[in-house]
Amino acid sequence: VSAAGFALDPRLAAGSAFVTDWPLVQVRLRHDARFPWLLLVPRRAGVSELHDLDTADRAALGAAVLAATRVVQDVAAPDKINVAMLGNVVAQMHVHVVGRRRVDAAWPGTVWAAGEAVAYAPDALAAALAAYRAACARLAPS
Amino acid sequence: VSAAGFALDPRLAAGSAFVTDWPLVQVRLRHDARFPWLLLVPRRAGVSELHDLDTADRAALGAAVLAATRVVQDVAAPDKINVAMLGNVVAQMHVHVVGRRRVDAAWPGTVWAAGEAVAYAPDALAAALAAYRAACARLAPS
Repeated sequence: VSAAGFALDPRLAAGSAFVTDWPLVQVRLRHDARFPWLLLVPRRAGVSELHDLDTADRAALGAAVLAATRVVQDVAAPDKINVAMLGNVVAQMHVHVVGRRRVDAAWPGTVWAAGEAVAYAPDALAAALAAYRAACARLAPS
Repeated sequence: VSAAGFALDPRLAAGSAFVTDWPLVQVRLRHDARFPWLLLVPRRAGVSELHDLDTADRAALGAAVLAATRVVQDVAAPDKINVAMLGNVVAQMHVHVVGRRRVDAAWPGTVWAAGEAVAYAPDALAAALAAYRAACARLAPS
Protein backbone atom coordinates (compact mmCIF):
# COMPACT_ATOMS: atom_id res chain seq x y z
CA VAL A 1 0.00 0.00 0.00
CA SER A 2 1.44 3.37 -0.93
CA ALA A 3 0.75 6.93 0.13
CA ALA A 4 -0.30 7.79 -3.42
CA GLY A 5 -3.46 9.84 -3.39
CA PHE A 6 -3.27 10.70 0.31
CA ALA A 7 -4.64 14.14 1.09
CA LEU A 8 -5.39 15.43 4.56
CA ASP A 9 -9.09 16.18 5.09
CA PRO A 10 -9.50 19.98 5.22
CA ARG A 11 -11.36 19.82 8.55
CA LEU A 12 -8.48 17.90 10.13
CA ALA A 13 -6.04 20.37 8.60
CA ALA A 14 -7.96 23.36 9.94
CA GLY A 15 -8.40 21.90 13.41
CA SER A 16 -4.81 20.92 14.08
CA ALA A 17 -1.18 21.80 13.42
CA PHE A 18 1.51 19.62 11.84
CA VAL A 19 3.92 18.16 14.38
CA THR A 20 5.93 15.57 12.48
CA ASP A 21 5.78 12.57 10.18
CA TRP A 22 6.27 9.13 11.68
CA PRO A 23 6.21 5.85 9.77
CA LEU A 24 2.71 5.58 8.28
CA VAL A 25 1.16 8.47 10.20
CA GLN A 26 1.26 12.22 10.26
CA VAL A 27 1.29 13.49 13.85
CA ARG A 28 -0.75 16.65 14.47
CA LEU A 29 -1.62 18.78 17.52
CA ARG A 30 -5.28 19.64 17.96
CA HIS A 31 -5.95 23.36 18.26
CA ASP A 32 -7.37 23.14 21.77
CA ALA A 33 -5.20 24.46 24.59
CA ARG A 34 -7.41 22.76 27.21
CA PHE A 35 -6.08 19.29 26.44
CA PRO A 36 -2.74 17.74 25.36
CA TRP A 37 -4.32 16.25 22.25
CA LEU A 38 -2.52 14.56 19.36
CA LEU A 39 -4.02 13.23 16.14
CA LEU A 40 -2.43 10.42 14.16
CA VAL A 41 -3.47 10.38 10.51
CA PRO A 42 -2.35 7.43 8.37
CA ARG A 43 -0.96 8.69 5.06
CA ARG A 44 -3.22 6.40 3.08
CA ALA A 45 -5.98 7.29 0.67
CA GLY A 46 -9.50 6.07 1.32
CA VAL A 47 -9.06 4.42 4.73
CA SER A 48 -11.71 4.81 7.38
CA GLU A 49 -12.08 1.56 9.35
CA LEU A 50 -9.35 -0.64 10.88
CA HIS A 51 -10.02 -3.38 8.34
CA ASP A 52 -9.26 -0.92 5.53
CA LEU A 53 -5.58 -1.12 6.55
CA ASP A 54 -3.43 -4.07 5.58
CA THR A 55 -1.62 -6.11 8.24
CA ALA A 56 1.64 -4.17 8.04
CA ASP A 57 -0.15 -0.83 8.29
CA ARG A 58 -2.19 -2.03 11.25
CA ALA A 59 1.02 -3.00 13.04
CA ALA A 60 2.52 0.41 12.22
CA LEU A 61 -0.60 2.15 13.50
CA GLY A 62 -0.45 0.19 16.74
CA ALA A 63 3.20 1.16 17.20
CA ALA A 64 2.37 4.80 16.49
CA VAL A 65 -0.49 4.82 19.01
CA LEU A 66 1.78 3.37 21.69
CA ALA A 67 4.50 5.89 20.88
CA ALA A 68 2.01 8.78 20.93
CA THR A 69 0.77 7.77 24.38
CA ARG A 70 4.39 7.91 25.53
CA VAL A 71 4.81 11.36 23.98
CA VAL A 72 1.71 12.71 25.71
CA GLN A 73 2.85 11.13 28.97
CA ASP A 74 6.28 12.72 28.56
CA VAL A 75 5.07 16.20 27.61
CA ALA A 76 2.00 16.57 29.80
CA ALA A 77 2.19 13.92 32.57
CA PRO A 78 -1.59 13.43 32.53
CA ASP A 79 -3.64 11.34 34.96
CA LYS A 80 -5.10 9.19 32.15
CA ILE A 81 -4.74 8.85 28.42
CA ASN A 82 -7.74 8.50 26.12
CA VAL A 83 -7.26 6.80 22.75
CA ALA A 84 -10.05 6.79 20.20
CA MET A 85 -10.81 6.28 16.54
CA LEU A 86 -14.28 7.69 15.86
CA GLY A 87 -14.74 9.19 12.41
CA ASN A 88 -18.41 10.13 12.69
CA VAL A 89 -17.72 13.67 11.49
CA VAL A 90 -14.54 13.21 9.44
CA ALA A 91 -14.43 9.75 7.88
CA GLN A 92 -10.72 9.91 7.02
CA MET A 93 -9.02 7.66 9.57
CA HIS A 94 -7.49 9.54 12.47
CA VAL A 95 -6.67 8.43 16.00
CA HIS A 96 -7.09 10.77 18.97
CA VAL A 97 -4.50 10.44 21.75
CA VAL A 98 -5.50 12.80 24.54
CA GLY A 99 -3.98 13.36 27.94
CA ARG A 100 -6.60 13.88 30.62
CA ARG A 101 -6.43 15.43 34.05
CA ARG A 102 -8.91 15.02 36.87
CA VAL A 103 -9.28 18.79 36.91
CA ASP A 104 -9.63 19.39 33.16
CA ALA A 105 -12.59 21.01 31.42
CA ALA A 106 -14.30 17.73 30.52
CA TRP A 107 -13.37 15.25 33.27
CA PRO A 108 -14.72 12.59 33.67
CA GLY A 109 -16.58 13.09 30.41
CA THR A 110 -14.97 12.92 27.01
CA VAL A 111 -13.23 15.72 25.14
CA TRP A 112 -15.71 15.44 22.28
CA ALA A 113 -18.52 16.68 24.51
CA ALA A 114 -16.52 19.49 26.12
CA GLY A 115 -17.84 22.49 24.23
CA GLU A 116 -15.83 24.88 22.14
CA ALA A 117 -12.08 24.48 21.69
CA VAL A 118 -9.86 27.12 23.26
CA ALA A 119 -7.21 28.42 20.89
CA TYR A 120 -3.55 28.41 21.89
CA ALA A 121 -1.95 31.82 22.15
CA PRO A 122 0.62 32.04 19.32
CA ASP A 123 3.63 31.73 21.61
CA ALA A 124 2.00 28.92 23.56
CA LEU A 125 1.34 27.06 20.33
CA ALA A 126 4.95 27.46 19.25
CA ALA A 127 6.16 26.23 22.63
CA ALA A 128 3.80 23.26 22.57
CA LEU A 129 4.83 22.30 19.05
CA ALA A 130 8.50 22.48 20.02
CA ALA A 131 7.88 20.26 23.05
CA TYR A 132 5.89 17.70 21.05
CA ARG A 133 8.42 17.66 18.22
CA ALA A 134 11.29 17.00 20.62
CA ALA A 135 9.36 14.20 22.34
CA CYS A 136 8.22 12.74 19.01
CA ALA A 137 11.82 12.61 17.82
CA ARG A 138 13.01 10.91 21.00
CA LEU A 139 10.12 8.46 21.29
CA ALA A 140 9.41 7.75 17.61
CA PRO A 141 8.17 4.23 16.81
CA SER A 142 10.96 2.09 15.40
CA VAL B 1 2.19 -12.04 32.12
CA SER B 2 -0.53 -14.21 33.58
CA ALA B 3 -4.21 -13.69 34.35
CA ALA B 4 -3.53 -14.22 38.06
CA GLY B 5 -5.33 -11.63 40.11
CA PHE B 6 -7.62 -10.50 37.30
CA ALA B 7 -11.04 -9.45 38.55
CA LEU B 8 -13.63 -7.63 36.47
CA ASP B 9 -14.44 -4.17 37.81
CA PRO B 10 -17.95 -4.31 39.34
CA ARG B 11 -19.11 -1.31 37.27
CA LEU B 12 -18.08 -3.04 34.04
CA ALA B 13 -19.77 -6.22 35.27
CA ALA B 14 -23.00 -4.39 36.09
CA GLY B 15 -23.06 -2.43 32.82
CA SER B 16 -22.54 -5.32 30.41
CA ALA B 17 -23.17 -9.02 29.81
CA PHE B 18 -20.61 -11.77 29.21
CA VAL B 19 -20.37 -12.77 25.55
CA THR B 20 -17.27 -14.96 25.32
CA ASP B 21 -13.60 -15.26 26.15
CA TRP B 22 -11.08 -14.66 23.40
CA PRO B 23 -7.30 -14.82 23.74
CA LEU B 24 -6.36 -12.15 26.31
CA VAL B 25 -9.74 -10.42 26.45
CA GLN B 26 -13.20 -11.06 27.80
CA VAL B 27 -15.81 -9.89 25.28
CA ARG B 28 -18.90 -8.25 26.81
CA LEU B 29 -22.07 -6.60 25.45
CA ARG B 30 -22.94 -3.22 26.91
CA HIS B 31 -26.44 -3.04 28.36
CA ASP B 32 -27.64 -0.37 25.94
CA ALA B 33 -30.04 -1.47 23.22
CA ARG B 34 -29.51 1.79 21.29
CA PHE B 35 -26.06 0.80 20.06
CA PRO B 36 -24.30 -2.43 19.01
CA TRP B 37 -21.62 -1.98 21.67
CA LEU B 38 -18.95 -4.46 22.69
CA LEU B 39 -16.39 -4.12 25.46
CA LEU B 40 -13.04 -5.93 25.38
CA VAL B 41 -11.50 -6.37 28.82
CA PRO B 42 -7.96 -7.79 29.01
CA ARG B 43 -7.80 -10.51 31.67
CA ARG B 44 -4.85 -8.86 33.35
CA ALA B 45 -4.59 -7.40 36.81
CA GLY B 46 -3.66 -3.77 37.25
CA VAL B 47 -3.56 -2.63 33.61
CA SER B 48 -4.93 0.76 32.64
CA GLU B 49 -2.76 2.31 29.92
CA LEU B 50 -1.43 0.73 26.71
CA HIS B 51 2.11 0.77 28.03
CA ASP B 52 0.99 -1.36 30.99
CA LEU B 53 0.67 -4.30 28.56
CA ASP B 54 3.71 -6.21 27.35
CA THR B 55 4.44 -6.54 23.64
CA ALA B 56 2.67 -9.88 23.22
CA ASP B 57 -0.44 -8.64 25.01
CA ARG B 58 -0.51 -5.45 22.92
CA ALA B 59 -0.44 -7.56 19.78
CA ALA B 60 -3.24 -9.74 21.14
CA LEU B 61 -5.27 -6.65 22.02
CA GLY B 62 -4.81 -5.27 18.51
CA ALA B 63 -5.98 -8.57 17.02
CA ALA B 64 -8.99 -8.60 19.35
CA VAL B 65 -9.97 -5.05 18.43
CA LEU B 66 -9.79 -5.87 14.73
CA ALA B 67 -11.84 -9.05 15.25
CA ALA B 68 -14.42 -7.16 17.32
CA THR B 69 -14.89 -4.57 14.59
CA ARG B 70 -15.58 -7.46 12.20
CA VAL B 71 -18.09 -8.94 14.64
CA VAL B 72 -19.95 -5.64 14.99
CA GLN B 73 -19.88 -5.21 11.20
CA ASP B 74 -21.24 -8.71 10.76
CA VAL B 75 -24.00 -8.50 13.37
CA ALA B 76 -25.14 -4.90 12.94
CA ALA B 77 -23.88 -3.62 9.55
CA PRO B 78 -23.32 -0.11 10.96
CA ASP B 79 -22.34 2.98 8.97
CA LYS B 80 -19.21 3.55 11.08
CA ILE B 81 -17.39 1.83 13.90
CA ASN B 82 -16.05 3.76 16.90
CA VAL B 83 -13.12 2.28 18.83
CA ALA B 84 -12.01 3.86 22.09
CA MET B 85 -10.01 3.22 25.24
CA LEU B 86 -10.95 5.92 27.75
CA GLY B 87 -10.90 4.81 31.39
CA ASN B 88 -11.79 8.12 32.99
CA VAL B 89 -14.54 6.52 35.07
CA VAL B 90 -13.37 2.91 35.30
CA ALA B 91 -9.58 2.71 35.22
CA GLN B 92 -9.46 -1.03 34.49
CA MET B 93 -8.50 -1.29 30.83
CA HIS B 94 -11.45 -1.84 28.50
CA VAL B 95 -11.87 -1.06 24.82
CA HIS B 96 -15.20 0.11 23.44
CA VAL B 97 -16.10 -1.14 19.94
CA VAL B 98 -19.38 0.49 18.93
CA GLY B 99 -21.32 0.30 15.71
CA ARG B 100 -22.82 3.66 14.75
CA ARG B 101 -25.65 4.60 12.43
CA ARG B 102 -26.34 7.98 10.94
CA VAL B 103 -29.80 7.79 12.49
CA ASP B 104 -28.81 6.59 15.97
CA ALA B 105 -29.51 8.39 19.24
CA ALA B 106 -26.11 10.09 19.42
CA TRP B 107 -24.99 10.65 15.81
CA PRO B 108 -22.69 12.41 15.04
CA GLY B 109 -21.75 12.80 18.69
CA THR B 110 -20.26 10.04 20.78
CA VAL B 111 -22.11 7.35 22.68
CA TRP B 112 -20.60 8.54 25.97
CA ALA B 113 -22.60 11.79 25.74
CA ALA B 114 -25.86 10.18 24.66
CA GLY B 115 -27.80 10.24 27.90
CA GLU B 116 -29.17 7.23 29.73
CA ALA B 117 -28.71 3.71 28.44
CA VAL B 118 -31.82 1.89 27.23
CA ALA B 119 -32.10 -1.63 28.62
CA TYR B 120 -32.60 -4.59 26.28
CA ALA B 121 -35.87 -6.44 26.71
CA PRO B 122 -34.98 -9.90 28.09
CA ASP B 123 -35.70 -11.73 24.85
CA ALA B 124 -33.88 -9.09 22.81
CA LEU B 125 -30.83 -9.46 25.07
CA ALA B 126 -30.87 -13.23 24.64
CA ALA B 127 -31.15 -12.86 20.87
CA ALA B 128 -28.35 -10.28 20.76
CA LEU B 129 -26.06 -12.43 22.89
CA ALA B 130 -26.73 -15.43 20.65
CA ALA B 131 -25.91 -13.39 17.55
CA TYR B 132 -22.70 -11.96 19.05
CA ARG B 133 -21.59 -15.36 20.35
CA ALA B 134 -22.02 -16.94 16.94
CA ALA B 135 -20.13 -14.12 15.23
CA CYS B 136 -17.40 -14.14 17.90
CA ALA B 137 -16.89 -17.87 17.37
CA ARG B 138 -16.68 -17.48 13.60
CA LEU B 139 -14.48 -14.36 13.61
CA ALA B 140 -12.30 -15.03 16.67
CA PRO B 141 -8.74 -13.69 16.49
CA SER B 142 -6.27 -16.47 15.71
